[in-house]
Amino acid sequence: MHGIATDAIRNDVEKFLCDYFAQMQPASLYDPIRYVLTGGGKRLRPVLTVLAAESVSKTDVYESALRAGSAIEILHNFTLVHDDIMDKSDLRRGRQTVHNRWNDATAILSGDTMLGAAYQILLGATANSHDFGNIIQSFTAGLIGVCEGQALDLDYQRSSAVSMDKYMRMIELKTAKLLEICAEIGAFIGGASSEQISVLREFARNVGAAFQIQDDLLDITGEAAEFGKPIGNDIIEGKKTYLIVRAAEIAPKGSDGELLRKFFNERGLPAIDIPRMKDMLQRHDVLNDARSAIEKFSADAAMYLSVLPDSPAKQKLLDINAGLIVRRS
Amino acid sequence: MHGIATDAIRNDVEKFLCDYFAQMQPASLYDPIRYVLTGGGKRLRPVLTVLAAESVSKTDVYESALRAGSAIEILHNFTLVHDDIMDKSDLRRGRQTVHNRWNDATAILSGDTMLGAAYQILLGATANSHDFGNIIQSFTAGLIGVCEGQALDLDYQRSSAVSMDKYMRMIELKTAKLLEICAEIGAFIGGASSEQISVLREFARNVGAAFQIQDDLLDITGEAAEFGKPIGNDIIEGKKTYLIVRAAEIAPKGSDGELLRKFFNERGLPAIDIPRMKDMLQRHDVLNDARSAIEKFSADAAMYLSVLPDSPAKQKLLDINAGLIVRRS
Repeated sequence: MHGIATDAIRNDVEKFLCDYFAQMQPASLYDPIRYVLTGGGKRLRPVLTVLAAESVSKTDVYESALRAGSAIEILHNFTLVHDDIMDKSDLRRGRQTVHNRWNDATAILSGDTMLGAAYQILLGATANSHDFGNIIQSFTAGLIGVCEGQALDLDYQRSSAVSMDKYMRMIELKTAKLLEICAEIGAFIGGASSEQISVLREFARNVGAAFQIQDDLLDITGEAAEFGKPIGNDIIEGKKTYLIVRAAEIAPKGSDGELLRKFFNERGLPAIDIPRMKDMLQRHDVLNDARSAIEKFSADAAMYLSVLPDSPAKQKLLDINAGLIVRRS
Repeated sequence: MHGIATDAIRNDVEKFLCDYFAQMQPASLYDPIRYVLTGGGKRLRPVLTVLAAESVSKTDVYESALRAGSAIEILHNFTLVHDDIMDKSDLRRGRQTVHNRWNDATAILSGDTMLGAAYQILLGATANSHDFGNIIQSFTAGLIGVCEGQALDLDYQRSSAVSMDKYMRMIELKTAKLLEICAEIGAFIGGASSEQISVLREFARNVGAAFQIQDDLLDITGEAAEFGKPIGNDIIEGKKTYLIVRAAEIAPKGSDGELLRKFFNERGLPAIDIPRMKDMLQRHDVLNDARSAIEKFSADAAMYLSVLPDSPAKQKLLDINAGLIVRRS
């Protein structure tokens, strides 16, 4: 199974998730879970887990890494289901969110159950691993980390000034943390040395930062049809994205400064102000600055990986990292 | 530490929970958790975990069982925080619920974090146990079980006819399951034989059934001040409690039958109808029938325990079982 194409990993994830939940009852609980987990997505987390495992392993660890990665994918989707309730988001990847299609109670409870299922799958996939305890520990740290990251995100929506340090701390928890545990758990499954674990973890942290800033950028530069979310949604919701935090650092004068103050004071802007905001971010080089930050984190990620011996899996990790910079959805 | 009083176990649980979360940040996330976990309660789950461990162990397993039991107590409180959102309950143990005191988003996210913390504590408490994998597996089965039980509870609120079989299946998951994992995890920590694990599990399942039917009964026979919830709340919410399911089996005629049909058709009754409902349940011997069921489950629980050698811990388990029958809150 060494050297499997990332598309093949994705297909195996889809199949595993579909089969695993196919027969589960009651329907009121598992129909929403099946709906969420057949909604597509890049499956970046299981792909990363499998490739991390294969980049260090000399034996076949594909099945175990695939299942562990699928468990992290479910953990990720659990956070999306609950975050969408908190953020009152009606759409996700172009489809109705669970609380919108069903109701809040169903979304809360289905999310909780997804977390239980994720642990269940992870336990089954790694019970015989030498690093079983470390794997469960890493997964649990991931769960707590994303919750703390979401709490900071909500805190920051309510506060006016958010420094770049605080922003970076938030995305390290909210976005990078789950990619980090993919790399770490994959490395454990692959029997990595502590140095290998460390470089894979740093690779994933930097990919995570690049990924989130790209997400922040796409909110205003993307195409709604490809991005799966309305453009400018973060602006409307008053999210303290990289763009907003950087613009506040620049502290523009005149009408630009007023627009930014309005965003902070009113905790977001009406949709009609989005083109003005985009124009302002463009003129003050904030969009280019974001692109530079993405490139820097991506370059750092690649640098960490240079320590690992060359392999097809390592090359695919580098390809994924390179692909995230140019992605449009 | 063998033979410690249950009050002392309770005190140690309070102290552990208080200390564990004392310094955690951000406050927006951990203040609600500290609020929930300092809200008292019987701490039945950690007490049961410690006593199960001590009833089979020849060595000192107190600290490990206390922490594992505290993890289950947190899991239990996580379900309460989320259930209270779903049930739109404003009060719990006489205090404001989290979503009422803060908001839904805070209650969802704090609940999620409690679950992460529960796993974290369980991992720390049992990582060196011979049965570590089984313990994490049992805990995860408990999480999934209570979610499925809550889903059935919500399903049944929307459906008219619920059989006694379905009711029993629901309370086995929603209430008994967590007591079962207390006994099971305590037994694992104590190094129990498979027969001992089995009888402790059956003891807890029967205690759980007795406990839930007593809870259903107290909803209508209790005193609000002691019970911590408004009396007749289950009737108002249209819950399919033991009393309702049993009354439907009896199928009373005339105005009694009409009252019951009104309950089913309108998915609950207004508060003004509670005295009539109580009177009806009294006259048709439903309240006495519930008392008999509680006694039967409690007697079965005691019977299972007779297999274990006598010990102070076993005696305290029997005392708890006996105490649940006569409890008023």
